[in-house]
Amino acid sequence: MSLITVGSVAFDAIESPYGKTDKIIGGAGTYITLATSYFGANPKVVSVVGGDFPNVALEMLKNHGADVEGIQIKADEKTFFWSGKYHNDMNSRDTLVTELNVLEKFDPIIPRNYQDADFLMLGNLAPTVQRTVIERLSQRPKLIVMDTMNFWMDIMLDELLKTIALVDVLVINDEEARQLSGEYSLVRAAKKVMAMGPKFLIIKKGEHGALLFHKDQIFSAPALPLEEVFDPTGAGDTFAGGFIGHLHKTGDISFENMKTAVIMGSVMASFTVEKFGTDRLQYLSQEDIDNRVEKFVQLTKFSS
Amino acid sequence: MSLITVGSVAFDAIESPYGKTDKIIGGAGTYITLATSYFGANPKVVSVVGGDFPNVALEMLKNHGADVEGIQIKADEKTFFWSGKYHNDMNSRDTLVTELNVLEKFDPIIPRNYQDADFLMLGNLAPTVQRTVIERLSQRPKLIVMDTMNFWMDIMLDELLKTIALVDVLVINDEEARQLSGEYSLVRAAKKVMAMGPKFLIIKKGEHGALLFHKDQIFSAPALPLEEVFDPTGAGDTFAGGFIGHLHKTGDISFENMKTAVIMGSVMASFTVEKFGTDRLQYLSQEDIDNRVEKFVQLTKFSS
Repeated sequence: MSLITVGSVAFDAIESPYGKTDKIIGGAGTYITLATSYFGANPKVVSVVGGDFPNVALEMLKNHGADVEGIQIKADEKTFFWSGKYHNDMNSRDTLVTELNVLEKFDPIIPRNYQDADFLMLGNLAPTVQRTVIERLSQRPKLIVMDTMNFWMDIMLDELLKTIALVDVLVINDEEARQLSGEYSLVRAAKKVMAMGPKFLIIKKGEHGALLFHKDQIFSAPALPLEEVFDPTGAGDTFAGGFIGHLHKTGDISFENMKTAVIMGSVMASFTVEKFGTDRLQYLSQEDIDNRVEKFVQLTKFSS
Repeated sequence: MSLITVGSVAFDAIESPYGKTDKIIGGAGTYITLATSYFGANPKVVSVVGGDFPNVALEMLKNHGADVEGIQIKADEKTFFWSGKYHNDMNSRDTLVTELNVLEKFDPIIPRNYQDADFLMLGNLAPTVQRTVIERLSQRPKLIVMDTMNFWMDIMLDELLKTIALVDVLVINDEEARQLSGEYSLVRAAKKVMAMGPKFLIIKKGEHGALLFHKDQIFSAPALPLEEVFDPTGAGDTFAGGFIGHLHKTGDISFENMKTAVIMGSVMASFTVEKFGTDRLQYLSQEDIDNRVEKFVQLTKFSS
């Protein structure tokens, strides 16, 4: 079995109440790829960077077992750059800079050895690009998971809906679920969103955890209560990576196993927010992960 | 073993996007008492009402097994009255009317057969009154649980802190935990609040569930995701009643059993919000409760 991860591999600059970074390595594709790597995925990455992107960062992904053949390098262009500033409550942020650069005309290439992948993780990108990836695969993967954001709902809703209709699992946050459905109640919102195509819906609620919906079934996963959220950047991408990483590892896409996958996503995301950028996510041991899983068990288990 | 419940037995008038009520029976003491009754508690109620309070409402409490000897009836005064209006998101509300009436000079009386109670549930009231109840018990109960609200933090913080120092479990919501501690992170807030006296802290998060803290341990309970929250009035009181009702029934005040008690509180609260006032909470069967507990198990259980 194999897994393709799609998403930006990019530069970020982050300000938070805890400090400020220079340009650091970020992007949805980076966080997703790193998270899946801890589930033995050897993820096949589809992305694009500019000539300014350091080779050492691509090596870092390779050291995590990633296949980077699908990362195009546009020598004469610049890498996607995003800069943001978090407010004191860490739940809201302002975007300071967005330079699309190489992403503006991103035409994804699927290397031959990526074909026949069983699992496809579409990180947040233009829904047209996400759809192109699906179309360029010679056979439909067993499971397609898609992340997106309100930005695409605002500027290209029709294209977004076309792509959403093609996927199995959609991952969005609570505000996005409300915007997409026009319903305040997340239970009602979930029904409307699943009627758009995805058989499964995950609604991320930040510090309040995540909800997984499938037909009339609901699973609620907490987030790990933390003293400090150092930098939330990439937490949602990491969640998606841990989620599909577990499904790919086990080969089981039942609702029951997706519950565990949501916990695995939450576990991985709980590491990402502990340091700036990928500083924590890059250096996890299996023991770190096992201990964190046990924390989630303790956090949620009760006798009835 | 026996259980004392303390709190207002009162009139409410509620407006929500779903409709509007006349004066209906409400009050923290009413919700708490009803919730505990489903755990075989025969709760001994301490409260005060005016001559305008219908005898049939006291009979209703008695029919749920409550001992109402501790409910003073001030024939020449009027019952406490609160009126509020919920906004479209049901998470915020405006208070339209608060008439303290008999609560203004409430001097709680503890009937002789209430003495030696093992469990004491102090519903939201002036912290001075809550403390008077503790002082008038001939021996300290095995467990004292206290609910309060931001109103008392605003107008009599010193008195509130004196009462908080005397209890075992404090129940407040997330905004109140932040206000009381001055900390945004709920983990940090919990540490500061527990340093004020209570060995256990429950932070209610409305639709996001509740967190139970004890030393370095945390338990996270979800709220039941609902299509409609019809009327949130009394949900927090019902939660507290279900919580202490389970502890009283089992006689086990360990952290492990408190986890289950938090779930039982959440189960009972999930009924209260389904109809206006106590319309749902008055008429539950054991089967209703068992089925709802099973829903919480399904909502949270995962294999790791």
